[in-house]
Amino acid sequence: MTNVLKPALTSTVIALDAMGGDDGSAMVIAGAALALERYPKLSYIIFGDEARVRPHLDRFPALAAVSELRHTADFVSSETRPSLALRQGRKSSMRLAINAVAAGEAVSVVSAGNTGALMAMAKFVLKTMPGIDRPAIATVFPTQKGECVVLDLGANLECDAENLVQFALMGSIFCNAVLGVSQPSIGLLNIGVEEMKGHDEVRTAAAILRERPLPGTFHGYVEGNDIMAGTVDVVVTDGFSGNIALKAVEGTAKFMAHILKQSLQGSLWGKIGYLFARGCLQKMRLRADPRRYNGAMFLGLQGVCVKSHGGTDQEGFANAIGVAHDLVAHRFNERIGEELARHYGAAESDHVVTIESVAGEID
Amino acid sequence: MTNVLKPALTSTVIALDAMGGDDGSAMVIAGAALALERYPKLSYIIFGDEARVRPHLDRFPALAAVSELRHTADFVSSETRPSLALRQGRKSSMRLAINAVAAGEAVSVVSAGNTGALMAMAKFVLKTMPGIDRPAIATVFPTQKGECVVLDLGANLECDAENLVQFALMGSIFCNAVLGVSQPSIGLLNIGVEEMKGHDEVRTAAAILRERPLPGTFHGYVEGNDIMAGTVDVVVTDGFSGNIALKAVEGTAKFMAHILKQSLQGSLWGKIGYLFARGCLQKMRLRADPRRYNGAMFLGLQGVCVKSHGGTDQEGFANAIGVAHDLVAHRFNERIGEELARHYGAAESDHVVTIESVAGEID
Repeated sequence: MTNVLKPALTSTVIALDAMGGDDGSAMVIAGAALALERYPKLSYIIFGDEARVRPHLDRFPALAAVSELRHTADFVSSETRPSLALRQGRKSSMRLAINAVAAGEAVSVVSAGNTGALMAMAKFVLKTMPGIDRPAIATVFPTQKGECVVLDLGANLECDAENLVQFALMGSIFCNAVLGVSQPSIGLLNIGVEEMKGHDEVRTAAAILRERPLPGTFHGYVEGNDIMAGTVDVVVTDGFSGNIALKAVEGTAKFMAHILKQSLQGSLWGKIGYLFARGCLQKMRLRADPRRYNGAMFLGLQGVCVKSHGGTDQEGFANAIGVAHDLVAHRFNERIGEELARHYGAAESDHVVTIESVAGEID
Repeated sequence: MTNVLKPALTSTVIALDAMGGDDGSAMVIAGAALALERYPKLSYIIFGDEARVRPHLDRFPALAAVSELRHTADFVSSETRPSLALRQGRKSSMRLAINAVAAGEAVSVVSAGNTGALMAMAKFVLKTMPGIDRPAIATVFPTQKGECVVLDLGANLECDAENLVQFALMGSIFCNAVLGVSQPSIGLLNIGVEEMKGHDEVRTAAAILRERPLPGTFHGYVEGNDIMAGTVDVVVTDGFSGNIALKAVEGTAKFMAHILKQSLQGSLWGKIGYLFARGCLQKMRLRADPRRYNGAMFLGLQGVCVKSHGGTDQEGFANAIGVAHDLVAHRFNERIGEELARHYGAAESDHVVTIESVAGEID
């Protein structure tokens, strides 16, 4: 029933939802081929419409050799309400890919489809881990000092103190697995660093985090600017603020790139300067390239589920597969289970998960 | 009792809290002198410790000629709890400056001090406008298309739907007064643009905004990246998310400037390119210069109250005074009163404001 205590699998079979993302199956298949070059031990079970997926697969013989394509005509669109996807999408490529993880056929699912539907289905099929009330979405941000992990990015619009504490715990293990940081520093996102700031949930979470032993160190409150400054290794917040921060960061990076381009193109000197500095500017672009940071993980589920940005390309999708690979290779889920047992004592999940309960929490 | 229905004053007397801000009175006085060059009709009542303020004032004879310095040794520190400032700071420079607006001696107060204390005192002394439940903090952001107004930036950590609707109304009048946009488009910040997204408060606010006549047009939901993309003229959100978005934007702009500098300094070609493009890059820096966007307005009070960033310099503080000037010149507060009367019918404020009620809401 649970993946938590299983040892990491020796071969890495990844279930792919080939029908998610703006660019659909072409991007997914090309991304899978790229990831295979980087991680030659990967193999795939690919779910999607055979008539649409097969032609792309045929372009990559090495990929085709390690992939099993399972046909389904049904898929979840980006506009579908998560509760509806959960009720009516039982034959969808997304759902079947998640089922493959639950059945132990694959160690991870990667999808570029509808985030809410993916979360609802993953929560219903894979279940949350014992000791975790709500899964959270985490990803890696570039910072002035390196990289940091931010969560929750949109799975939970409202969070109580205990949810935030669980996010801190999962986030620091994620940070260790993906960024290799031992004893990550953890910051709680707030509107000021003074002790009195913030609403009740945040202040109570801070009080708990100061007391409880953690797989990291609690730094205290951080503010929005601390994310990119690299003040801490893990930034913990609710899904509403986290999603807005994530997209505000993306928007600002685009704005800065836009005005840089405008400035350089606005005069002859700027154009000449660009010719010289082009290589440097490309390196800079690479460092902030959102494709490098593609692949958000749903933490707290009994199975590894990675969400790729819908609007990414093959490079971005390959990176999302890379995140799934690293999490499995570092026995990420097993370690969360071990930490939870260490902090809370061994406990079975006492959540009775039904379609109705998941649908009620999600939409 | 109320400034709402008074005509705009012909002379513009501004009350300054000379003791706020990291750099204190030197920055405030130099900023006031700079603003006076830009708006020669300004005059000031300056509140602060005479022994500390007078030497700075003496350096600017033109400023000294239009300023009245009123001595008080008491001031509010940046660490003071707002409720404590409210109870014990009755003789502080911040409080006396606000009192001057309430007494009709000045048309606006500008302070670089403790935001929470300034809001608590301003709310207690000036009162909220009839029809407005909670004041909000608004400021102007640069965007790819020009500029936009964002509110609330931290006055209200939790907001109900009606608060958000009132922010939309005040924000669009602010946008008109400060940016000159007639019929601004208004977006409600959310984690997706689909109708079903977001928590109850946001969805209810959207439903009301779709129906109610506004001094602008309701665009619908926007996401974090839309702020800097310039998708709408006014972005409305609660104070927690707004503050985090504001600071995430600041942090990202710093991050981008940092990696740009690193990239250019990292190679000879980059350094040569920089020599050519220097002028352009300085223009770019100017466009995103946070000092240009300094001066956050407390909307919804019976008096104009502008908060300057504590860490700004004279240029930034002069811009904050400029915001106060523009709001008074455009009869901003009177127009909010007129709009409220138009939408809700003429009503007197039914809030009984006591120190206890304000302190309870603020800390």
